[in-house]
Amino acid sequence: YTQGFPEVIFGLGKTPEQIAAIFYQLAQKSNLVLATRCSHEAYAAVIRQVPEAQFHAVAGIISLGLPPDGSSSVGSSSDDSSSKVSMGETASIAVLSAGTADLPVAEEAVISAQAMGCQVHRIYDVGVAGIHRLIAHRSQLRQAHVLIVVAGMEGALASVVAGMVDVPVIAVPTSIGYGASFGGLAALLGMLNSCALGVGVVNIDNGFGAAALAATIMRQRQR
Amino acid sequence: YTQGFPEVIFGLGKTPEQIAAIFYQLAQKSNLVLATRCSHEAYAAVIRQVPEAQFHAVAGIISLGLPPDGSSSVGSSSDDSSSKVSMGETASIAVLSAGTADLPVAEEAVISAQAMGCQVHRIYDVGVAGIHRLIAHRSQLRQAHVLIVVAGMEGALASVVAGMVDVPVIAVPTSIGYGASFGGLAALLGMLNSCALGVGVVNIDNGFGAAALAATIMRQRQR
Amino acid sequence: YTQGFPEVIFGLGKTPEQIAAIFYQLAQKSNLVLATRCSHEAYAAVIRQVPEAQFHAVAGIISLGLPPDGSSSVGSSSDDSSSKVSMGETASIAVLSAGTADLPVAEEAVISAQAMGCQVHRIYDVGVAGIHRLIAHRSQLRQAHVLIVVAGMEGALASVVAGMVDVPVIAVPTSIGYGASFGGLAALLGMLNSCALGVGVVNIDNGFGAAALAATIMRQRQR
Amino acid sequence: YTQGFPEVIFGLGKTPEQIAAIFYQLAQKSNLVLATRCSHEAYAAVIRQVPEAQFHAVAGIISLGLPPDGSSSVGSSSDDSSSKVSMGETASIAVLSAGTADLPVAEEAVISAQAMGCQVHRIYDVGVAGIHRLIAHRSQLRQAHVLIVVAGMEGALASVVAGMVDVPVIAVPTSIGYGASFGGLAALLGMLNSCALGVGVVNIDNGFGAAALAATIMRQRQR
Amino acid sequence: YTQGFPEVIFGLGKTPEQIAAIFYQLAQKSNLVLATRCSHEAYAAVIRQVPEAQFHAVAGIISLGLPPDGSSSVGSSSDDSSSKVSMGETASIAVLSAGTADLPVAEEAVISAQAMGCQVHRIYDVGVAGIHRLIAHRSQLRQAHVLIVVAGMEGALASVVAGMVDVPVIAVPTSIGYGASFGGLAALLGMLNSCALGVGVVNIDNGFGAAALAATIMRQRQR
Amino acid sequence: YTQGFPEVIFGLGKTPEQIAAIFYQLAQKSNLVLATRCSHEAYAAVIRQVPEAQFHAVAGIISLGLPPDGSSSVGSSSDDSSSKVSMGETASIAVLSAGTADLPVAEEAVISAQAMGCQVHRIYDVGVAGIHRLIAHRSQLRQAHVLIVVAGMEGALASVVAGMVDVPVIAVPTSIGYGASFGGLAALLGMLNSCALGVGVVNIDNGFGAAALAATIMRQRQR
Amino acid sequence: YTQGFPEVIFGLGKTPEQIAAIFYQLAQKSNLVLATRCSHEAYAAVIRQVPEAQFHAVAGIISLGLPPDGSSSVGSSSDDSSSKVSMGETASIAVLSAGTADLPVAEEAVISAQAMGCQVHRIYDVGVAGIHRLIAHRSQLRQAHVLIVVAGMEGALASVVAGMVDVPVIAVPTSIGYGASFGGLAALLGMLNSCALGVGVVNIDNGFGAAALAATIMRQRQR
Amino acid sequence: YTQGFPEVIFGLGKTPEQIAAIFYQLAQKSNLVLATRCSHEAYAAVIRQVPEAQFHAVAGIISLGLPPDGSSSVGSSSDDSSSKVSMGETASIAVLSAGTADLPVAEEAVISAQAMGCQVHRIYDVGVAGIHRLIAHRSQLRQAHVLIVVAGMEGALASVVAGMVDVPVIAVPTSIGYGASFGGLAALLGMLNSCALGVGVVNIDNGFGAAALAATIMRQRQR
Ligand SMILES: Nc1ncnc2c1ncn2[C@@H]1O[C@H](COP(=O)(O)O)[C@@H](O)[C@H]1O
Ligand SMILES: Nc1ncnc2c1ncn2[C@@H]1O[C@H](COP(=O)(O)O)[C@@H](O)[C@H]1O
Ligand SMILES: Nc1ncnc2c1ncn2[C@@H]1O[C@H](COP(=O)(O)O)[C@@H](O)[C@H]1O
Ligand SMILES: Nc1ncnc2c1ncn2[C@@H]1O[C@H](COP(=O)(O)O)[C@@H](O)[C@H]1O
Ligand SMILES: [Mg+2]
Ligand SMILES: [Mg+2]
Ligand SMILES: [Mg+2]
Ligand SMILES: [Mg+2]
Ligand SMILES: [Mg+2]
Ligand SMILES: [Mg+2]
Ligand SMILES: [Mg+2]
Ligand SMILES: [Mg+2]
Repeated sequence: YTQGFPEVIFGLGKTPEQIAAIFYQLAQKSNLVLATRCSHEAYAAVIRQVPEAQFHAVAGIISLGLPPDGSSSVGSSSDDSSSKVSMGETASIAVLSAGTADLPVAEEAVISAQAMGCQVHRIYDVGVAGIHRLIAHRSQLRQAHVLIVVAGMEGALASVVAGMVDVPVIAVPTSIGYGASFGGLAALLGMLNSCALGVGVVNIDNGFGAAALAATIMRQRQR
Repeated sequence: YTQGFPEVIFGLGKTPEQIAAIFYQLAQKSNLVLATRCSHEAYAAVIRQVPEAQFHAVAGIISLGLPPDGSSSVGSSSDDSSSKVSMGETASIAVLSAGTADLPVAEEAVISAQAMGCQVHRIYDVGVAGIHRLIAHRSQLRQAHVLIVVAGMEGALASVVAGMVDVPVIAVPTSIGYGASFGGLAALLGMLNSCALGVGVVNIDNGFGAAALAATIMRQRQR
Repeated sequence: YTQGFPEVIFGLGKTPEQIAAIFYQLAQKSNLVLATRCSHEAYAAVIRQVPEAQFHAVAGIISLGLPPDGSSSVGSSSDDSSSKVSMGETASIAVLSAGTADLPVAEEAVISAQAMGCQVHRIYDVGVAGIHRLIAHRSQLRQAHVLIVVAGMEGALASVVAGMVDVPVIAVPTSIGYGASFGGLAALLGMLNSCALGVGVVNIDNGFGAAALAATIMRQRQR
Repeated sequence: YTQGFPEVIFGLGKTPEQIAAIFYQLAQKSNLVLATRCSHEAYAAVIRQVPEAQFHAVAGIISLGLPPDGSSSVGSSSDDSSSKVSMGETASIAVLSAGTADLPVAEEAVISAQAMGCQVHRIYDVGVAGIHRLIAHRSQLRQAHVLIVVAGMEGALASVVAGMVDVPVIAVPTSIGYGASFGGLAALLGMLNSCALGVGVVNIDNGFGAAALAATIMRQRQR
Repeated sequence: YTQGFPEVIFGLGKTPEQIAAIFYQLAQKSNLVLATRCSHEAYAAVIRQVPEAQFHAVAGIISLGLPPDGSSSVGSSSDDSSSKVSMGETASIAVLSAGTADLPVAEEAVISAQAMGCQVHRIYDVGVAGIHRLIAHRSQLRQAHVLIVVAGMEGALASVVAGMVDVPVIAVPTSIGYGASFGGLAALLGMLNSCALGVGVVNIDNGFGAAALAATIMRQRQR
Repeated sequence: YTQGFPEVIFGLGKTPEQIAAIFYQLAQKSNLVLATRCSHEAYAAVIRQVPEAQFHAVAGIISLGLPPDGSSSVGSSSDDSSSKVSMGETASIAVLSAGTADLPVAEEAVISAQAMGCQVHRIYDVGVAGIHRLIAHRSQLRQAHVLIVVAGMEGALASVVAGMVDVPVIAVPTSIGYGASFGGLAALLGMLNSCALGVGVVNIDNGFGAAALAATIMRQRQR
Repeated sequence: YTQGFPEVIFGLGKTPEQIAAIFYQLAQKSNLVLATRCSHEAYAAVIRQVPEAQFHAVAGIISLGLPPDGSSSVGSSSDDSSSKVSMGETASIAVLSAGTADLPVAEEAVISAQAMGCQVHRIYDVGVAGIHRLIAHRSQLRQAHVLIVVAGMEGALASVVAGMVDVPVIAVPTSIGYGASFGGLAALLGMLNSCALGVGVVNIDNGFGAAALAATIMRQRQR
Repeated sequence: YTQGFPEVIFGLGKTPEQIAAIFYQLAQKSNLVLATRCSHEAYAAVIRQVPEAQFHAVAGIISLGLPPDGSSSVGSSSDDSSSKVSMGETASIAVLSAGTADLPVAEEAVISAQAMGCQVHRIYDVGVAGIHRLIAHRSQLRQAHVLIVVAGMEGALASVVAGMVDVPVIAVPTSIGYGASFGGLAALLGMLNSCALGVGVVNIDNGFGAAALAATIMRQRQR
């Protein structure tokens, strides 16, 4: 990637063969490769050429160079181990999701952030219709250094969470919903109009972009 | 009115003189008259013809026949006192608002509902960015029989509230906000996509319509 | 469900296998289970695991614990029989639909409301282009305690019906139509702008949500 | 006008002086002149130059050559009197409006159609929330040869009316409403998606255009 | 049909089997049946039950009771032959289309209008980018009594044609185009904003609705 | 200006005083200055500081260094006279407008293009509802080397003109219209979907931008 | 073609058989034929009837009469060789694209422009996120006489490029992106609002239309 | 403010008297008060009650407790001086703006961020149409720890800047523009679709919200 991150392929609109070809090419020159928005078919094509590639099925990500637990052994700076120590121990990202259907986007954020050398905690199924479940995670929320909030439908989770913490919140609207959700527009507008402070919004379903922004913020801490 | 409510004038787009003329006319044949969306100028014109008219400045409502505390002595059914007893004592509507700027719409709902013979409680300034303030009102919320939730910007309050109670929630998006709020569209879409059950939505800024639906539900209780 | 209703699976976007697995799981701990937005294939997968499950083909609902006629033997409160008596005899919901193409949404509302313990009457094919057909049902309309109006295209039925009755009207816009219907937007906007009072709107095609709001209102009558 | 109608000035966006100047110019060469979308100020400017001009205040139309009752003594064909006889006696346009706020558009249609030599009947305040009022006018509706239906908010009147008659219905959405009416968009979409047959739609607030289409249809009857 | 036209089935969203079943049913009680928006598969299903049904492949219409040339031997009034004489000889509808891709909608209008007892002339491929081709048809245009203009993309044909004739123009926007055509929205808005008089607009791709409005106007001529 | 054109101030949203101050400043260092979107008040402020400034009232442009007839004596290249000879004699831009209300935008294009050293011809009031008027200008159209087509409402003029000529057509949608014109959106979409080839579109009301593109094309001829 | 270009078939929405039939027909009367938006299947059908047809797979164009390198031996004027000399040697179009996914549209522009007799240079993968790559091509950019800029997502490339050159820039938004790209709307709006001068915009994905406008401008140079 | 920032009044839609009253109230209990979106009239009202209040005219901000140079002597943490040292010396925010008209939003961000205890650098007038001006600031850009990019029209600046730096970029679309800018929608969509990584977007014109997110990120550095 041009900006200090692992090499990444955006799989949407590419055939399994195209993905496999690019993946193979990148694997020759980099020891950390990601392909997002990939199907099982794409993975089948990739492992024919790069047998050690892994598939993160919910996230739709094919990876190379990520340890099984998902956290990358290759950091965003050249001196990766120090980076891992400094961030992995004390600093972490929390990824929250509202509903089950939002999981693919949440997992895209999780795996991508891990590939960028971040420590990530998952806090899933905390949609605002059951506000007690969210509040039950309050202390966990407060330990994170950046929060990624993934929600579709009305996208209200971002505002509620941002009101509970003092750290940056990255809001990811998802296209989950139907009718007047208009493909994620309702969640997107809701997040842009957040009445809470400290919220930055990325494109609909853009779990990867949220991870990149979160990792950029995390790197700042070490500068 | 064709549906058993007080006579109502919709003031938007009418001159003070037009409002005063219609108000005077209705006051001849009805002892409970409302005019919504009215300015101080409209009130000045009305009291020249109907000196006992009252002005609810935040709501922008001119009323006749409403006792000072706002609750009407004329119910929606012919036998008003019994209605007042049965509803006033045991059953009530709670009107919640997210921010200060939503007050005109919230007050339009409050005064309108009172004019329709309902007991109303105000729970204001409980926007989701300070979720603890909302949660502090939990028991009050649970005592209401119908909730009217008034919120602009991302309109997330409706979902959170509906998740906390088992009674009908009437969601009123407001045009409060700017930029990507698009005149209340963000709040409207958010409320229509509510992930919580039991929410019915009315038009943007339509406090009066919310009150009418709430009053209709309340009347059902007595049937 | 968190709000006192049967367990419900939202089938849209889930594979038959996923639906069957969740259905089986819920059937272990609840004697009333619904899965909405399901295909015949999903039903085939479910009965392999839960042979007594029923399929409501027009509604696209798979149910468990609903008697053949669709009315649930399990009410929304723990003491279901009393609830059935009090509501079943004297109080009922009427579900109206405008055209044949709106039936899936109308039936989703009917079956869902029945599963929530409500007595439901169907009044179908009463679109406003044949206003006499609607008017012929006037007395039936007036007997209902809550009305659910399901209509696509211009969605005008909600306004006409709300003008004819004094009870709450829940308007469900459908995505039926083409061209300038924009996936149900025309009906949605029409219903939100209803010139009649007492109308609450839910999301496009959201028959289930309409049923939940209706059942919430019905429960209020017993409080 | 280029198409066989009276000379017409579109007043919107023109100063009183500009309107007066064009009006004077047209009055030199034509004995039937209309200016639509005009204020009292524009009328004051016009009569300074063309003292015999009339003002139709609700319609916002300044006219020359229209008898006081509004019906033109100058027909759309050269042989006006025969046209008046044949159309005035047996054929007529009915202009319906839903609410009081729609009157300016309805009157724009009425005065314009009269200026185009048509006999016009007004059927006002027949919005669908009080369907009995509309039905009470059934026989009047059936006598008209073309119907112009003017309605804002949800615009449902066009569908209901078109279902009651066998003649062409010209639907005029108005910008009356607020919030989700989006300046008449809700009514416009509603009318375009009419489930009744025989409806042609014109632009929002375009009473004049509706009159022109109606007059064109009326002229066809004589060909 | 409820409004004096042939029985019509709207095929969109119905399976071949459903179409065939309804077609068979209608064929029992009416000697003129249409099914619009039908595929070859639907036709195959229909002729198994109603062998004498015809398929108009470009229009996507299955018909019963329409002579091979498409013009119906059954008029819209009971006394069809007189109707045919009066209209067929002297009065006719012209259907214009802009491009080849608009033909399915244009043919839907043609076949539908014929089924409603109208004489129809086709004037195809006269898009405004080659204005001379349109002008070459000027005298033909002027002979028609009602014009149906079918155009996608920018939909400019309606304005140009309406400026050339003195008869009613029914504008049908089509969904032909891509990108900023937004499914026919560009053509729809263009036609609604026509700077020429005498234009009524129907829904996107609604060739059948245009025919119904045209036939309604034609019937007026005989009243 | 960074791109070889005169210095230009965009007056929209600036006070007369701000415009005058910037104008004065630019007049010190350049002998050709334009300020677009200016009122009479702005002009009054400017001439107090730069008495020789001119006002082009319809265009809303204040200019310095443009001869009375509007054509600039300062070309876009340093050797202005040769530029004027080569372009002024043989090559020219034609600016077409559809209606009177489009004139401010058309004139903004004309004056701006002249200030950029171009020869400009005006062909006004050739809207498509009177296609013969446009066709009467055919030979004039064919003499131009670039055409700027200014039209609001449905914006159809661009397609018709582009079909008549072989040279580049720059389409300028205007915000003229009301209702479904949505501030020029209808014209913009129409022009983007032009079925004729050789059309490039600029922003709504952007007569200045159209002139800049036209002048850029004209300069190419000399390279 | 009516405007002096090769014969072109627009393949979108046509079956391979339909494309092949039209292609064969045009090949009888023209020695330069293009079919755009074609699949491999369409090509297979075409070569069965016109064996010498070529397929430009990325562009999705089937051509006849274009030399292998893509540049046409048949110019847009009758005297093609002179045209080739004058344009091929000194004047050329540069086609820029932002990302890999934009290549089909960029190649549609390239092949189309070549077929119209233009010399074309490709400058690919110069998206604004790596501005140094674009700047590295500065001298190449400055040699072109017309630039076609193809970009999806935010479409920012057009503004940056137009600020770097003095020649006409034709901006082609693509539908590449997801979520808030809304099918190319984001890029389209971005390009229409370009803060740089000299930009004309065509429809989303319209590489062919951009080529036609560019070729029209190039032909002007020779007039 | 509820989240550890200074007390802030949102002035939009409040009268000068309302702003002054709230300002006075907050000044009693806090030594750092801001009021955004304020006019000169509001400032006049405020200083009558709080004479030491300052007005930042371009930003439209009234402040109390901010030293003349704009940087607050009160940090966001209780121990302000240490905070100032740690952040003021080594860490800073850069605020970039594209055009002059974007300055009010940029200044709102600057003053707000200063009030939150941040060191801020202004980099103004670096719109992408003059990319060299932006590139000339490259080293300055690279010294900042968070960038706020303020741009209207096409909003392309955010993508270009994010591609040049490795730190978080907060993109603020402005409502600057006209026509197809649709009140900032074009810039908003452009920024959401940024092809560069590390961009978080806030609402249109929300300079204050951008400052709050930036300050939240800066505080993270010290944790
Ligand atoms: N604030 C409001 N919002 C929406 N509808 C209202 C409002 N106030 C009054 N109305 C409705 O407007 C009707 C009166 O309209 P009008 O005849 O124009 O005064 C009343 O009967 C109400 O149904
Ligand atoms: N047809 C429906 N439309 C909207 N919401 C539904 C529908 N059916 C079920 N739901 C909701 O979806 C939830 C289950 O979602 P899930 O966990 O994704 O299966 C239920 O609790 C319901 O609140
Ligand atoms: N009418 C106009 N429409 C669009 N852009 C314009 C117009 N007039 C001037 N401009 C541009 O605005 C720039 C000046 O903007 P400003 O610095 O705000 O005065 C000029 O360089 C032109 O590129
Ligand atoms: N890719 C394209 N995008 C837009 N228009 C095209 C394209 N390819 C061809 N056309 C136009 O479509 C016309 C042919 O359309 P058709 O008759 O439907 O094949 C041609 O004359 C071109 O003007
Ligand atoms: Mg916070
Ligand atoms: Mg609830
Ligand atoms: Mg009612
Ligand atoms: Mg009818
Ligand atoms: Mg005409
Ligand atoms: Mg041309
Ligand atoms: Mg340039
Ligand atoms: Mg970066």
